[in-house]
Amino acid sequence: MRMYDIIDKKKRAASLTDDEINFAVDGFVGGKIPDYQMSALLMAIWFNGLDKRELTTLTTAMAHSGDMIDLSAIDGLKVDKHSTGGVGDKTTLIVAPIVAACGGKVAKMSGRGLGHTGGTVDKLESIPGYRTELTRQEFFDTVNNCGLSLIGQSGNLAPADKKLYALRDVTATVDSLPLIASSIMSKKLAAGSDCILLDVKTGSGAFMKTLDDAIALAETMVAIGEGAGRRTVALITDMDTPLGYGIGNSIEVAESMDVLKGRGAHDLTAVSIELAANMLYLVGKGTLDDCRKLVEKSIADGSAFETFCKMVKAQGGDDSVLRDYDNFDKAPFSREIFADGDGFVAKMNAELLGKVSVMLGAGRETKDSPIDFSAGIVLRKKFGDEVHAGDSLATLYASNEKLFVAAEENFRAAIELGDKPETRPLIFARVEAGHVERF
Amino acid sequence: MRMYDIIDKKKRAASLTDDEINFAVDGFVGGKIPDYQMSALLMAIWFNGLDKRELTTLTTAMAHSGDMIDLSAIDGLKVDKHSTGGVGDKTTLIVAPIVAACGGKVAKMSGRGLGHTGGTVDKLESIPGYRTELTRQEFFDTVNNCGLSLIGQSGNLAPADKKLYALRDVTATVDSLPLIASSIMSKKLAAGSDCILLDVKTGSGAFMKTLDDAIALAETMVAIGEGAGRRTVALITDMDTPLGYGIGNSIEVAESMDVLKGRGAHDLTAVSIELAANMLYLVGKGTLDDCRKLVEKSIADGSAFETFCKMVKAQGGDDSVLRDYDNFDKAPFSREIFADGDGFVAKMNAELLGKVSVMLGAGRETKDSPIDFSAGIVLRKKFGDEVHAGDSLATLYASNEKLFVAAEENFRAAIELGDKPETRPLIFARVEAGHVERF
Repeated sequence: MRMYDIIDKKKRAASLTDDEINFAVDGFVGGKIPDYQMSALLMAIWFNGLDKRELTTLTTAMAHSGDMIDLSAIDGLKVDKHSTGGVGDKTTLIVAPIVAACGGKVAKMSGRGLGHTGGTVDKLESIPGYRTELTRQEFFDTVNNCGLSLIGQSGNLAPADKKLYALRDVTATVDSLPLIASSIMSKKLAAGSDCILLDVKTGSGAFMKTLDDAIALAETMVAIGEGAGRRTVALITDMDTPLGYGIGNSIEVAESMDVLKGRGAHDLTAVSIELAANMLYLVGKGTLDDCRKLVEKSIADGSAFETFCKMVKAQGGDDSVLRDYDNFDKAPFSREIFADGDGFVAKMNAELLGKVSVMLGAGRETKDSPIDFSAGIVLRKKFGDEVHAGDSLATLYASNEKLFVAAEENFRAAIELGDKPETRPLIFARVEAGHVERF
Repeated sequence: MRMYDIIDKKKRAASLTDDEINFAVDGFVGGKIPDYQMSALLMAIWFNGLDKRELTTLTTAMAHSGDMIDLSAIDGLKVDKHSTGGVGDKTTLIVAPIVAACGGKVAKMSGRGLGHTGGTVDKLESIPGYRTELTRQEFFDTVNNCGLSLIGQSGNLAPADKKLYALRDVTATVDSLPLIASSIMSKKLAAGSDCILLDVKTGSGAFMKTLDDAIALAETMVAIGEGAGRRTVALITDMDTPLGYGIGNSIEVAESMDVLKGRGAHDLTAVSIELAANMLYLVGKGTLDDCRKLVEKSIADGSAFETFCKMVKAQGGDDSVLRDYDNFDKAPFSREIFADGDGFVAKMNAELLGKVSVMLGAGRETKDSPIDFSAGIVLRKKFGDEVHAGDSLATLYASNEKLFVAAEENFRAAIELGDKPETRPLIFARVEAGHVERF
């Protein structure tokens, strides 16, 4: 078998055999196939795509290039969740304990934030004492005892994806739907859960700017998941404006706890209920309506919140900050941003708000930047709200007053006052094997 | 400027600026742009092509990556000829002296053979004493004194093409019309002639298997040549069966001299007359009809043959072999191939016959293989000829009898007897700036 023939075949839009795909992935990871041949193949895939079988084979080969996490030591069906990344997206902190409280198992490894979107691991580390690095055995025990465990990525997951992504990044082949889908799903397959819920974001703050693109990506990822024997569902959710009011690490933890306590922001609560209900649906807890009722009950009776506290304590964290947010370290400086005119919030650029939070210290400019857990933004007005001159639009938090200058300027650029805008749905569509439901 | 953006732009089918093309070519030749980025760009070009301006810019940049031969020391208009490669294609040996005898100047550098097609330099070297390596000054002097000089490639011509071709060869991007065209034309531009006649072969023995592909390649190359300020014409000629009767080095020299003496094979003579007439047309010797008459006269009065002999002597060669072919070294062994049935020669696979001649020792299997100048094939029957069982189909020549076994087997596979086939035209089309004439 020769890589030349594999490139030539894909270039002519033919379907590659499983052997050919495995040969290419294994050879590339093993250093036998040079970058210049792989980049030619990636560009041919950019043009001609991959069919469902090719995608499942490619993704499985990428997953098997490193550790395949074996979660069989955990009882019951495990369900993972993946978000394609959003500003102020704290839903993992909310849905994981809800699902656990309702009998699902969530053994989840999350990433750190880079660029304008925050990472779940960074948010969790704002809880004093919380350990995001556990041994494999501690991880399994925590899930068995608490129903969930949220930790950082460990082990050598899908090294083929890392190497392919680095090459795509310099050869203009990142923006390929099948390559995006296989990249995400290879890590999910390696992470070992039986079921996968995908939260595909669309809108100005998301990678997929249009609904059609987001649905196409969701369909592709669902097909890969099902092809690899994992029950998979995707929701397409809005990321044109941030979810909830908070952007920043401890700020988002507090806001998530508000949802678990039944007093959360409307949009964040509604999206979290749908995500959690779909995760329970995947692990067989009944119809979607049944699952929604389970979710609502777990919030109303406090079991979801207590489940989260139990897991935090099991991982060394101080749950007092979750019960009283005043126990969190406070940012020494804050600045109120006042409206300089009347109108409605007609635009709220989520991507730019994410960048403002990074400027304030809440995120990383580069991989090794330190994080200020208390920094961030609390919005006082949301998309569609009426505003009068002098109203507070938001409070910015930082540990250095100088940071407010550029942050305020960029915050103002992210917000536009105007006529009352049309409301946007929170969830646009749901994708289940071979079936797309648009709302 | 970043290579990433250039790849991305071509991937989206946009037209690259001259600066972008020069940046890519110069950076690649200078080692600043890695192979994996260039192979991604080449694949994007495979899919999206290049427009005429891009092609001219690319080809010019490739030409300027090395020596640009300055032929201004030679008086008058210089005309070059390029053949896309054919089995038994000895037309350069015929048309160059004809053009010179009629007042054109041919300062031509040719290549060696590799694979199933022979090289002009190898054929010339079968003439005892003939020097294919001249100093630049000797080269100019020979053209000024004889009207022509045929030598091997010297100098560092279009190194960008060499480096790009090596990468295309391992990334399945050889079969791209714009890349083939720019590769050929970059060397022609660097070689310095004012006018270029392209002989684009089509048929089973040629790279371009269909007439439409051959015409498309011809149109592209003519556009590049004209865009770079060189008068350029292309003829599309047949390479479904070999031209003439001989395949092999001294065998082809002898057959070429027969044409110059007015007693050559019909097909070879006809094609040579058209090629030479078009070269004279390019250097302004009148209408095509005028030029044909000049060509025929130069054969009839012996001036073309004597011009060739003069050049051979000027380059140290022994012209006695041209006057009496018995003076050539003879192959010690020959084998007659007899027909084992009746019929007409309905197929004659030129590519396979080329391979048979290589098996006999007339060509190179690899770059460094030695060549047997006397080895080869003389056909006794041509495409369309009637054959009876026991008739000789061909004589094979070699310096080792053992070579005949595989050679005969392959020769027989190349020939098919059947019903009388339809005759094929020798010349299918002619392309001049923006104008295609099909015959």
